Amino acid sequence: MPNTFGHAFRITTFGESHGGGVGVVIDGCPPGYKIDLELVQTWLNRRRPGQSKISSPRDEKDRVECLSGLEGGITLGTPIALLVRNEDQKPGHYSDLQQVFRPSHADYTTLTKYGVRPGSGGGRASARETIGRVAAAAVAEQILTAKLPGFRCVAYVDSVKGEAAQIDDPASVTRDEVEAHILRCPDQAGRARLEAIITAAQKDGDSVGGTIACAISGIPVGLGDPVFDKLEADLAKAMMSLPASKGFEVGLGFRSTLMFGSEHNDAFTSSNGRISTVTNRSGGIQGGISNGELIYCRVAFKPVATIFKVQDSVDAAGVPVKLRPKAGRHDPCVLPRAVPMVEAMAILVVMDHWLRQQMLVATRV
Amino acid sequence: MPNTFGHAFRITTFGESHGGGVGVVIDGCPPGYKIDLELVQTWLNRRRPGQSKISSPRDEKDRVECLSGLEGGITLGTPIALLVRNEDQKPGHYSDLQQVFRPSHADYTTLTKYGVRPGSGGGRASARETIGRVAAAAVAEQILTAKLPGFRCVAYVDSVKGEAAQIDDPASVTRDEVEAHILRCPDQAGRARLEAIITAAQKDGDSVGGTIACAISGIPVGLGDPVFDKLEADLAKAMMSLPASKGFEVGLGFRSTLMFGSEHNDAFTSSNGRISTVTNRSGGIQGGISNGELIYCRVAFKPVATIFKVQDSVDAAGVPVKLRPKAGRHDPCVLPRAVPMVEAMAILVVMDHWLRQQMLVATRV
Amino acid sequence: MPNTFGHAFRITTFGESHGGGVGVVIDGCPPGYKIDLELVQTWLNRRRPGQSKISSPRDEKDRVECLSGLEGGITLGTPIALLVRNEDQKPGHYSDLQQVFRPSHADYTTLTKYGVRPGSGGGRASARETIGRVAAAAVAEQILTAKLPGFRCVAYVDSVKGEAAQIDDPASVTRDEVEAHILRCPDQAGRARLEAIITAAQKDGDSVGGTIACAISGIPVGLGDPVFDKLEADLAKAMMSLPASKGFEVGLGFRSTLMFGSEHNDAFTSSNGRISTVTNRSGGIQGGISNGELIYCRVAFKPVATIFKVQDSVDAAGVPVKLRPKAGRHDPCVLPRAVPMVEAMAILVVMDHWLRQQMLVATRV
Amino acid sequence: MPNTFGHAFRITTFGESHGGGVGVVIDGCPPGYKIDLELVQTWLNRRRPGQSKISSPRDEKDRVECLSGLEGGITLGTPIALLVRNEDQKPGHYSDLQQVFRPSHADYTTLTKYGVRPGSGGGRASARETIGRVAAAAVAEQILTAKLPGFRCVAYVDSVKGEAAQIDDPASVTRDEVEAHILRCPDQAGRARLEAIITAAQKDGDSVGGTIACAISGIPVGLGDPVFDKLEADLAKAMMSLPASKGFEVGLGFRSTLMFGSEHNDAFTSSNGRISTVTNRSGGIQGGISNGELIYCRVAFKPVATIFKVQDSVDAAGVPVKLRPKAGRHDPCVLPRAVPMVEAMAILVVMDHWLRQQMLVATRV
Repeated sequence: MPNTFGHAFRITTFGESHGGGVGVVIDGCPPGYKIDLELVQTWLNRRRPGQSKISSPRDEKDRVECLSGLEGGITLGTPIALLVRNEDQKPGHYSDLQQVFRPSHADYTTLTKYGVRPGSGGGRASARETIGRVAAAAVAEQILTAKLPGFRCVAYVDSVKGEAAQIDDPASVTRDEVEAHILRCPDQAGRARLEAIITAAQKDGDSVGGTIACAISGIPVGLGDPVFDKLEADLAKAMMSLPASKGFEVGLGFRSTLMFGSEHNDAFTSSNGRISTVTNRSGGIQGGISNGELIYCRVAFKPVATIFKVQDSVDAAGVPVKLRPKAGRHDPCVLPRAVPMVEAMAILVVMDHWLRQQMLVATRV
Repeated sequence: MPNTFGHAFRITTFGESHGGGVGVVIDGCPPGYKIDLELVQTWLNRRRPGQSKISSPRDEKDRVECLSGLEGGITLGTPIALLVRNEDQKPGHYSDLQQVFRPSHADYTTLTKYGVRPGSGGGRASARETIGRVAAAAVAEQILTAKLPGFRCVAYVDSVKGEAAQIDDPASVTRDEVEAHILRCPDQAGRARLEAIITAAQKDGDSVGGTIACAISGIPVGLGDPVFDKLEADLAKAMMSLPASKGFEVGLGFRSTLMFGSEHNDAFTSSNGRISTVTNRSGGIQGGISNGELIYCRVAFKPVATIFKVQDSVDAAGVPVKLRPKAGRHDPCVLPRAVPMVEAMAILVVMDHWLRQQMLVATRV
Repeated sequence: MPNTFGHAFRITTFGESHGGGVGVVIDGCPPGYKIDLELVQTWLNRRRPGQSKISSPRDEKDRVECLSGLEGGITLGTPIALLVRNEDQKPGHYSDLQQVFRPSHADYTTLTKYGVRPGSGGGRASARETIGRVAAAAVAEQILTAKLPGFRCVAYVDSVKGEAAQIDDPASVTRDEVEAHILRCPDQAGRARLEAIITAAQKDGDSVGGTIACAISGIPVGLGDPVFDKLEADLAKAMMSLPASKGFEVGLGFRSTLMFGSEHNDAFTSSNGRISTVTNRSGGIQGGISNGELIYCRVAFKPVATIFKVQDSVDAAGVPVKLRPKAGRHDPCVLPRAVPMVEAMAILVVMDHWLRQQMLVATRV
Repeated sequence: MPNTFGHAFRITTFGESHGGGVGVVIDGCPPGYKIDLELVQTWLNRRRPGQSKISSPRDEKDRVECLSGLEGGITLGTPIALLVRNEDQKPGHYSDLQQVFRPSHADYTTLTKYGVRPGSGGGRASARETIGRVAAAAVAEQILTAKLPGFRCVAYVDSVKGEAAQIDDPASVTRDEVEAHILRCPDQAGRARLEAIITAAQKDGDSVGGTIACAISGIPVGLGDPVFDKLEADLAKAMMSLPASKGFEVGLGFRSTLMFGSEHNDAFTSSNGRISTVTNRSGGIQGGISNGELIYCRVAFKPVATIFKVQDSVDAAGVPVKLRPKAGRHDPCVLPRAVPMVEAMAILVVMDHWLRQQMLVATRV
């Protein structure tokens, strides 16, 4: 339900951006696995803002603490609760916005839905909520890596405001290449163009969006269900639950609609007893179920709603207001920080379906 | 889980294309509502193939029977079970395909996942599974219409193989306009172009895809949850669980990535005590929650995998095979039939979130 | 939720006693298992009333039809929908009761909860709803038997109105012994006493209750979860969801409260590398998890509410009414028919937890 | 699933007895309610051991911290995370037990299920896990009290080792009366007898069990569902999920089996437009749904497994071992501490069903 994701590997996140802390409870993590909390911390550091001039200057330490579920670094099979304290709260930052609905933010819809509005900012709609997701994915990744040799999930910035990076083979991109540059775009030659767009928008007090690509390799055949829980359906929900995402596609996605069936179909072939497809326009999923090829998808993120320009709005009484934001702590472009979020959601979906598939494997006649 | 969709309005579909029948059990339907089964039948007729030369010639009667949950046409608050018998089964049609994996079909992944393969065709991956979804949506629509004056959900063919229909105002399209033509495209002037593409592909034994747009009006502010169950996330999952869908976007979707924040933000305004937005680039959802504006989204459908050309494949033993399909019963283009499916999934998502929101409304302090 | 039971092996039942039919959709049944529908029918026959003079004379054929999920008698891993038509409906039987609330029936609570009341009798509170449960258990039992050699679940009438049967070793009772007599009590010497109580009550137009014992053997160590989904907790819910049940106990149950800890504890011992307990006062479950010993529990069933005596009640307007039931179709004692229901619920719980445990087994490091 | 309870008011507990802490995440708490954390602390104090000579001397501070979901003491409608740190850990206490399976404890079943065993004691089977349940119930109670005038839930020790307290009218017992004495038995005249049994067992290094009664008043008609989620079924699961519980009954429970239907049925009557029952043998629930009368139930707790006598057992290798526990921190009788746990589980069930029923109320035609 609202704050829980997954069925076999279920995560429940909690926390507002300005209360005691944010975190996650993972239920369904199998027992006996070694989990390195430093790797979890590394993930959180990747997600953290304040890393460079094109990211928000908000300085959050985001140290993760494990409250339960591990003993001597080994999973017990019990709920793993991970907590990150809120340190840099400064609720005053938002106080003059409290009575005004920021355009394209969740203020108006949240207040109308709940009848109460967190006085201190975005509440659960805050990107800070994703800390729990990322922490849970950092646990899941360690288990998947232990059980699926070859498993790898890498996302990267694919385009900024329509300016596309040039990546010939998504499968070959490594996380190190992505992390090597603050933009998280592995196109060494082209990324200066993309970065320039963000810098220009920032100077102008404006914001931009773009797309993130995600490639998942090392997935066995058989993950996903043929009806509602198709692998691409759960990936779509996962990605569209990220703040600011507006679109999702798998395989060739919208471009597949430009082709004939005879151009789009992936012929089967066989080599050394392993069946594979000659092409991979399907993006590694057929009939909702993984076919063993590379899974790739793309997510569209709108330009972030917080800008440093005067905007028209109304307050809770409906009175027109000119909104003049002071300098604050927001990214002009969510894309670099969203890269680990996209990876996290992909990993959570794969982990959940991998666990579900193990039940079928174990009950084979 | 796999065959259940929704949390408050939960539907569980069942049935293969060639067993006793297909259907749905609806759990969570509120009591006391008048349900017209003829309207359910009308929905099923819209979904049915065999309506024209650009649709599959398979003749299915698809008469719906209500097994439970209604008495005198009134919902009892108990599970509503709806059954459609399989009449035109002809499993022999598929017999020569049994040992060969059809390219971009679910044959290979299904067999590998389950260890068994329905000998009679596509099993649950069949579009026939969507009968249960459409029937459930036909029930939900009657309840939403009773409670939300102004509620309307209309989908239509938006483009075929890149050739776009010209629809100036999605909110103004009526279901009657859509149903008036076999293509289910309300662009009276332009749809001949789109139809010609399908006809040409059919003549060539090929298939094409395209996009379907969906507009939902009359939604109150407050539907959707701010974290995982964002309204757009549940819509994305719903649409991406339809056979052959490859992409989803809400509001301006991928096009939003081409804009500055200052261009994309929707300013708030107020009139007669009602707050609204001047523009609606967000597509009626902000922070995962409906804002009272028109909700619109688009879904990409790939060209259908069944074509009447020779294709390369392998059989279950991995031996290369030339696949030469005989004449069969498949659409060259899934789009017209997918229109009611898209509407159905949208309605199911709205119904579920509307029920969930009623709990909040009822428990207001 | 309301009409679904189980998490991994999920059953959703549907149907009122007087609509088109009753049935069940099973989701989560593993693929590749041979299911004999005649065994399902045998279970339904055991559940059926009209078998003797101490059971209701209502004649229901209760022929089960499988609508989906099986092909050639083999499970596909897809939902198994099982349907039993309602044949002997006679809604007129109940018509004079429609405006009066029968004492200790669900009439008053159902009407108040839903605002509508099935005009034709008990609706979902009818024992006929259990057809779906029993049919699902008949499927589950075949899978458990295939995978767990030694698995056996046998329930029997343990007492009638305080008169106890004498069963020295519940583990040794066979289903054949139970089925050999209409009372479903394997105490050959003593059951005449119990039967006489029922017959006397019937002559007097009255009803009686009693207890049913259930013994489950062949369960591996490890089923059940340590917190909310303790095996005994799920058994308790399962049994207390049966019509007319008022109490549940596992192991020595309420009698355990009469002992010292030193008398009640089950010492561990070991033989040929197998750890077991010297005694089994815990009833085969410790800390919510099966320990490999015999699981046994008891369920209390109240005297059925339908009696053939004049009773005081009120109608929907609150006006006092003397209720004078005519001859109808009800058992003076629910116990014999409840025996297969108790077995069914026990099997469903075991099946669900067995599947869940397979996920842990499959993901062992 | 395993660590989550409830559907509309969902609690997920986490924490072992010897990790960073224990706690709960509450999802589904409606927004806008004032929650007094001091009342939550009061509940935790009631649950805490170390209150007297008949309770365990373990001194736990158990201070609750709210991490999220409240702002200014008002619920936001977002997850409420409550954390209690583990302070008095002393894992060495258990070290010599690590290789030996304590009789009637969860050691053996836990190790076999998970393949790992918390080296520091009971893990999730610890009574300390119930902190999260009690804290969640303390929140729920404040909401129920705000919305249901007259709502009251009071449990008390009903018998110890077969020695019964004398309580004429369970509905009249107040929580203050229960809390006035360390035994939590409101029978002022008789409780010395019960206390003497516990004291004698403690002197002898032994333990005793007994029964707890629970009475819930002020419940509206209509809570509960007619099939699997009957109110008594969910109460049964709730109570049987408490450590050491072995039996549950509602209304007259097992004693109902001693009566004729004509003696057990509750006649309806009417007064001032309000329908009620003349007697209440059903315990306030009919057909799984509350009927507005007092709900009462009883729970059997076995004598606690930890005793201070020599016991036979085996170690993980199956080698026979004489178990000679040193002085430790355990109660000779779980009953007084279980009283708030029983209340907590009852409140959680009522809260969940009350929320569920609000959806029906809100969607009335």
